[in-house]
Amino acid sequence: ALATPAIAQESPKLQWRITSSFPKSLDTIYGGAETVAKYVTEATDGQFEIQVFAAGEIVPGLQAADAVRDGTVEMAHTTSYYYVGQDDAYALGTTVPFGLNARQMNAWYYYGGGNDLMNEFFATKGLYGLPSGNTGAQMGGWYRNEINTLNDLKGLKLRIAGLAGRIMERLGAVPQQLAGGDIYPALEKGVIDGAEFVGPYDDEKLGFVKVAPFYYYPGWWEGGPTVHTFVNLDQWNELPDNFKGVLTAACQAANCDMLASYDYKNPAAIRRLVNEGAKLRSFSQDVMQAAYDAAKEIYADISSSNEAFKKIYDSQIEFKRDAYLYAQLSEYTYDTFMMIQQRNGAI
Amino acid sequence: ALATPAIAQESPKLQWRITSSFPKSLDTIYGGAETVAKYVTEATDGQFEIQVFAAGEIVPGLQAADAVRDGTVEMAHTTSYYYVGQDDAYALGTTVPFGLNARQMNAWYYYGGGNDLMNEFFATKGLYGLPSGNTGAQMGGWYRNEINTLNDLKGLKLRIAGLAGRIMERLGAVPQQLAGGDIYPALEKGVIDGAEFVGPYDDEKLGFVKVAPFYYYPGWWEGGPTVHTFVNLDQWNELPDNFKGVLTAACQAANCDMLASYDYKNPAAIRRLVNEGAKLRSFSQDVMQAAYDAAKEIYADISSSNEAFKKIYDSQIEFKRDAYLYAQLSEYTYDTFMMIQQRNGAI
Repeated sequence: ALATPAIAQESPKLQWRITSSFPKSLDTIYGGAETVAKYVTEATDGQFEIQVFAAGEIVPGLQAADAVRDGTVEMAHTTSYYYVGQDDAYALGTTVPFGLNARQMNAWYYYGGGNDLMNEFFATKGLYGLPSGNTGAQMGGWYRNEINTLNDLKGLKLRIAGLAGRIMERLGAVPQQLAGGDIYPALEKGVIDGAEFVGPYDDEKLGFVKVAPFYYYPGWWEGGPTVHTFVNLDQWNELPDNFKGVLTAACQAANCDMLASYDYKNPAAIRRLVNEGAKLRSFSQDVMQAAYDAAKEIYADISSSNEAFKKIYDSQIEFKRDAYLYAQLSEYTYDTFMMIQQRNGAI
Repeated sequence: ALATPAIAQESPKLQWRITSSFPKSLDTIYGGAETVAKYVTEATDGQFEIQVFAAGEIVPGLQAADAVRDGTVEMAHTTSYYYVGQDDAYALGTTVPFGLNARQMNAWYYYGGGNDLMNEFFATKGLYGLPSGNTGAQMGGWYRNEINTLNDLKGLKLRIAGLAGRIMERLGAVPQQLAGGDIYPALEKGVIDGAEFVGPYDDEKLGFVKVAPFYYYPGWWEGGPTVHTFVNLDQWNELPDNFKGVLTAACQAANCDMLASYDYKNPAAIRRLVNEGAKLRSFSQDVMQAAYDAAKEIYADISSSNEAFKKIYDSQIEFKRDAYLYAQLSEYTYDTFMMIQQRNGAI
């Protein structure tokens, strides 16, 4: 008994597994789990070791949170909106169409009560959630033909999921569910007319530019999606305080890190894609406004029957009003001026 | 000897002090040091304990990095541009006028080689630096009268420091150095005509709105300033790997946290300030462009005689060109659309 170090009793050696919803090939978003695991393992000198598994190695990517809830694995690195089929409130943990942007999501999560609100909800699903990444505003997808008017959306077969799919449906499009690897052949054969994925760096890997060259922005359904680490709630509650502290710091660091990674890699990727033939187009204000109005109707519908959704959504909206008022001052005018310099070749 | 736990031998208990460049009253920026200390102390179960001291408690705020270099304290929470009097390259660690915005700074630091480049420079000063916070784009300061044209800057006595002061001087203004507490009476008596500080949440505490109500934006000299944790280089090198890992994660988490804190607090503060009489004004494109052109001349001058500055500056500029090209797509059009909704009262 004398030989057992007191500190080892307080902090037993743990070996946990984190199952990612993403394949290794998407190194930036998959890398978020690696960042969490590396920081925790290093910081504890291996006393709290986390091993990362790609989507499909233990469970399929879209079942990562379920596997954590059921105790198959201790942790998942995933996006909560993947589970919107179980409860619409899951969507708000990641993003909803026309939601908060990346910086606003962090402000809301860490200072606006967002983490408490989401964890109140996640607890009802046996989960504890920690924001662990963000992709920034995503692109609006690849299309075989231009979308000039609302009419061009009628009957359009789009690979798009979740709430964005429901909005597209209201605008007359026909949402399709396809796994990442099935998108390219469907686009090539014209089985679908367009597909949204993530942004330049990730999209480039799937080669859409060759078969659907019109690359639209913004991805109004993903203005700043948060990626989560989920921990089985019981196991989180039993974790020693210092390991809770390590994991909390590691996830917040990973949150910062993933956005930095996308922000560094996307600019170079968009240059390459344009060189390969991508034709950049912005969604028209008409299309955006119709989508926005449809989104608000859908949120009102859901809020009327889902109390958790309403509570979280109202909190995000309250902050969003002030956040987008303030952003019009220094942030927006600074960036605008710098963009003018960029266009003038004066950077 | 049997009673000595092995883990405690590998990781001796450390008690370090971090001296902040900021007073406790600036809770958001001062809070960055508290976040670092809390995460490290919690994660190591007190084995690596960091105690925070406000500016002036051990050394004056503007001497924090010197105190770390000299070994008076182990760590500082400060901004590297405070030390620009010792070497212009220090400026680039925080921000320079018309530099990278907050997200771009993180992209450059964590993925664009920024941390390696800055630490190559910091090492020559006996320091190891870890980005640990960001204020976001700051405001352009408080003025007794409106600044409509470049001519209005002639002879204007401004509380502004560093490279921004040098640019203002080229535009005909007269930069003044004043400590935070001396600004209000100087503005009140008309000893100075204007003063820049940080942004709404911090500025509000100093009450400038009562004596210099014209509140300008953007603060083109601070588009996304990074706050650093500095560690004495020798002590950093001797730190056990797990403590290095803890500190690295804690600082990256704190980096995320401070920006979230400003982003949450500033929107509410700007509302209060406008209610108290702040008159929001944007700098004219003429003033901005003249300042931009002057800045580029100054950077070329410094680069011609300061190799470290040139190397770091060139790296930032190369990324900035692509970053501001890419930002014009999804990020900018998404935010623009949401700002239109905000103005229409449709959020």
